[in-house]
Amino acid sequence: MEPRIKLWLEKDGGVALSGYRVRLLKHVADTGSLAEAARRMGLSYRRAWGKVKEMETNLGVRLVRSEAGGPGGGRTRLTPEAERLVALYPRFEAAAEKEVRRRFSKVFGEKA
Amino acid sequence: MEPRIKLWLEKDGGVALSGYRVRLLKHVADTGSLAEAARRMGLSYRRAWGKVKEMETNLGVRLVRSEAGGPGGGRTRLTPEAERLVALYPRFEAAAEKEVRRRFSKVFGEKA
Repeated sequence: MEPRIKLWLEKDGGVALSGYRVRLLKHVADTGSLAEAARRMGLSYRRAWGKVKEMETNLGVRLVRSEAGGPGGGRTRLTPEAERLVALYPRFEAAAEKEVRRRFSKVFGEKA
Repeated sequence: MEPRIKLWLEKDGGVALSGYRVRLLKHVADTGSLAEAARRMGLSYRRAWGKVKEMETNLGVRLVRSEAGGPGGGRTRLTPEAERLVALYPRFEAAAEKEVRRRFSKVFGEKA
């Protein structure tokens, strides 16, 4: 047997962060564009925008900020708070998964 | 924020055990009857039976054994292997959830 785990973070009962949501934010950071981030996730722009707004509402913080125009149009950037969450979440996820495998091995006496 | 976690065990890609499945087996142990266990889970008998058979197939072990008749009809009991799994799974689940909360607090610097 092997342990499987699904993780996410909630705030006041609403989903605040998950691996999926962090990937979306990471694509925004990498591309400077919510439209391109949506494309990379296989989401419509509207749906990606909705996810980001939902996270912002649930967390009570701004996660993205759009900068106006110039040649080639504006960029969308992560706020410092979003950058912090995008940096920390994968660490939490990796550490949590490792601990779950350790607990599994300890309780069931099988390698995970 | 608070961490949320969904756990289960797989074997060769099939779901072998989960909190839900362990509750079903526990009801069989408590009542001596798969029909009564199904009723307590709000499942049809057929569906409960299907879940048990699916687990047995995925795990490659017998989990329940029916004893024939006598007055009042036969009883269904857990096999020793099922008793072991029913005893161990909640320990794994509790330990895993505790560790996930600890990792969350450590990484995000917030109490879980």
